Amino acid sequence: METLKQYIEQNKDRFFDELFSLISIPSISSMHEHKQDMERCAQKWKELLINAGVDYCNIMPTKGNSVVYAEKIIDPTKKTVLVYGHYDVMPVDPIEQWHSDPFKAIIKDGKIYARGADDDKGQSFMHAKAFEYMVKTNQLPTNVKFMLEGEEEIGSENLYAFCQKNKDLLKADIILVSDTSMIGEDTPSITTGLRGLGYVEVEVIGADRDLHSGIYGGAVANPINVLCGMISKLMDENNHITVPDFYKEVLVISDEERKLMAQAPYNEENYKKELDIDDVFGEKGYSTIERTGIRPSLDVCGIWGGYQGEGSKTIIPSSAHAKISFRLVPDQDFNIITERFEKYFLSLAPKGVRVKVTPLHGGYPYVSPIDMPAYKAAEKAYEKVYGKRPIPTKSGGSIPIVAGFERILGIKSILMGFGLSADAIHSPNESYPVNQFLKGIETIPHFYKEFAKQ
Amino acid sequence: METLKQYIEQNKDRFFDELFSLISIPSISSMHEHKQDMERCAQKWKELLINAGVDYCNIMPTKGNSVVYAEKIIDPTKKTVLVYGHYDVMPVDPIEQWHSDPFKAIIKDGKIYARGADDDKGQSFMHAKAFEYMVKTNQLPTNVKFMLEGEEEIGSENLYAFCQKNKDLLKADIILVSDTSMIGEDTPSITTGLRGLGYVEVEVIGADRDLHSGIYGGAVANPINVLCGMISKLMDENNHITVPDFYKEVLVISDEERKLMAQAPYNEENYKKELDIDDVFGEKGYSTIERTGIRPSLDVCGIWGGYQGEGSKTIIPSSAHAKISFRLVPDQDFNIITERFEKYFLSLAPKGVRVKVTPLHGGYPYVSPIDMPAYKAAEKAYEKVYGKRPIPTKSGGSIPIVAGFERILGIKSILMGFGLSADAIHSPNESYPVNQFLKGIETIPHFYKEFAKQ
Repeated sequence: METLKQYIEQNKDRFFDELFSLISIPSISSMHEHKQDMERCAQKWKELLINAGVDYCNIMPTKGNSVVYAEKIIDPTKKTVLVYGHYDVMPVDPIEQWHSDPFKAIIKDGKIYARGADDDKGQSFMHAKAFEYMVKTNQLPTNVKFMLEGEEEIGSENLYAFCQKNKDLLKADIILVSDTSMIGEDTPSITTGLRGLGYVEVEVIGADRDLHSGIYGGAVANPINVLCGMISKLMDENNHITVPDFYKEVLVISDEERKLMAQAPYNEENYKKELDIDDVFGEKGYSTIERTGIRPSLDVCGIWGGYQGEGSKTIIPSSAHAKISFRLVPDQDFNIITERFEKYFLSLAPKGVRVKVTPLHGGYPYVSPIDMPAYKAAEKAYEKVYGKRPIPTKSGGSIPIVAGFERILGIKSILMGFGLSADAIHSPNESYPVNQFLKGIETIPHFYKEFAKQ
Repeated sequence: METLKQYIEQNKDRFFDELFSLISIPSISSMHEHKQDMERCAQKWKELLINAGVDYCNIMPTKGNSVVYAEKIIDPTKKTVLVYGHYDVMPVDPIEQWHSDPFKAIIKDGKIYARGADDDKGQSFMHAKAFEYMVKTNQLPTNVKFMLEGEEEIGSENLYAFCQKNKDLLKADIILVSDTSMIGEDTPSITTGLRGLGYVEVEVIGADRDLHSGIYGGAVANPINVLCGMISKLMDENNHITVPDFYKEVLVISDEERKLMAQAPYNEENYKKELDIDDVFGEKGYSTIERTGIRPSLDVCGIWGGYQGEGSKTIIPSSAHAKISFRLVPDQDFNIITERFEKYFLSLAPKGVRVKVTPLHGGYPYVSPIDMPAYKAAEKAYEKVYGKRPIPTKSGGSIPIVAGFERILGIKSILMGFGLSADAIHSPNESYPVNQFLKGIETIPHFYKEFAKQ
């Protein structure tokens, strides 16, 4: 495939222009004010896929944001690869921490900087360009289907129904996803496990108005103090989550597998330096890799209440709020865990306040076996381009719909991620190395070739 | 003093117009954007005082907001009353909870609604009108000085230096203050104690950016979880503050005095109903009145960190913040308490985060003896207008500068408050009953008359 490298080299400037036009649309799915941008972004994808050579492309409505579906069927008897990606992105706040406009991509020091540069516009767009190459050079070895959704960052709520309704349309031998990362630029890896996710908003309500902290201080329950107390009771001194039966369904990983995991390259000093922290943290008895790979976690993603402005305001606020997420591992069910959390959290509420728990979304964990044909094909593809056999790793992140695909469509997914941990996805100044973008485009056709052979 | 009632009746509409013009200036001292409003408000006071009949009025600069000083000296050998008030107000957020424009006063159901309607524009303006009456009817029995500051709500920081510099100018026999409340419309009371105040902002800092809660969740300390844990350790299960030596200087109140306090009218059911809470809260072993009157308290006035927008964002935030206030009682020193708090709070910080504590302001508690001449005069004045002997009460609130006056000028203050607990000062929809406003104006000249006699 010498022509492949040449094709990429000759066309890469156009690839960047096209990617940047996709990035320029602020498709933030969690904010209603961007509803129209979601549609614009779907239209842009349609245009890009048609130019890349699909037979046709439809923008298919759901109860929420539309799904972009496209396909190229070369021979119904041949294998079919279903490419999944998402065109929605995370919010950009704190906006003041960005060094450049999050929706005006720039290339600096060999990296693309923008919201979605990696997650997932950059990574999903590699598939469009790898596909374009295979079509233009008559090397497409399988049928290809594209499915791009606009709600991944808010739980893919409507994609489950979409899959139910379109089982035939979505028939495929494998689902190909690039929405994860690899260990390092020189250390390719394939994600074989994803954590599930639960996400709730909690509210503690006290008096019917903010109160003067002098006149009432010490005599009326303070919703912020109460909320802090309740949150502090969610983990014990060993950073073990205290929700009753939280760990009941957690798969116990064998010592052998833990030994294997321990072989993955991990340098604690670099890890701490990269994050500017003086120490790691987590559940007693587990390594950092295990804490994010095979153990569930609980994090408060946001908290607010009372006076947050300049200077001082002496009040007891009327209410306090927090957003809490849990990451789940096989075989935890987010519905059950969310129920147990709600029951426990409400039980922590003292007299003098009212407490509300609102589940926002959730998803199941996923495991990708290393003995399936697609994994072998991916292994060979990375090896060709990176010169090293990729390491199977478990990601701490979640792509809830991937477990959904298996449950609804009965199709496994292969997670060929090209992101790096330094890409700061979900954070200000998200980036994606130009090299990873180009090498990803180069790796994918090898995967198709190997997968067709299996 | 029959003419007094008539004078008020004949002029009350003008009184309202003048008060509303004072209220219409958004003099929020804690926000820089209102710096010019502070100056405008001082100018307005000057105009109002000159029209009321002072000899002269000066707007005197400080390092912060100016002090409005005015006087009328009828005879240097006569007693002098120094009226203190403040023309600054609290912020108005949450603005969406206001039923009307906070800076456009309206009268509804017998109450004036506006920010500052009670605290302290409404209450301090009563003195200007009572003074006007005594001047216009040649019944002023003492010399009068007015001192109105623009920084009470942010700790009166620059008024201490102002008093140091102007000891002679401010010479007086008593400082007369209306910035407190009375028990009820039919139950006059005089505040004989004020709590002191300490106020700090705390920050917990983790990684140098927001992190993906999947990829790092469970392996990196979460500043919000950490902050909640630290805050939860500030009080024990008896709602006793755990800062070492926090109570060391707290005056122990005799059982007799506690018995007297218990005689003040207090209806727990009404108290709970008025606040829409199902139970009171506080330090074990003390009544609600004691918890706010003779015991210190600790409240988180504001907290923020991470994602607070619509929907969900799965991050571990880079930092979390809180504003924490303590109310102090005799003989606690806010400087010492703030030091002890900082030392203890920092000691609660786990590895993996950095913690900052920034003191914002503070003030000393104050006690006003019930055997001083001014107290007796105030007692008689209330009795004349309300037909009942006022009850001596200890307020949970703080007017730090009142203790400062005693320390710097050696002058005691008499706290003739006319506010009601339902006035919701510092909260949305602050109000002040028209009757209290007019009865206050009626009560004050009686005080002058009685005080001159003592």
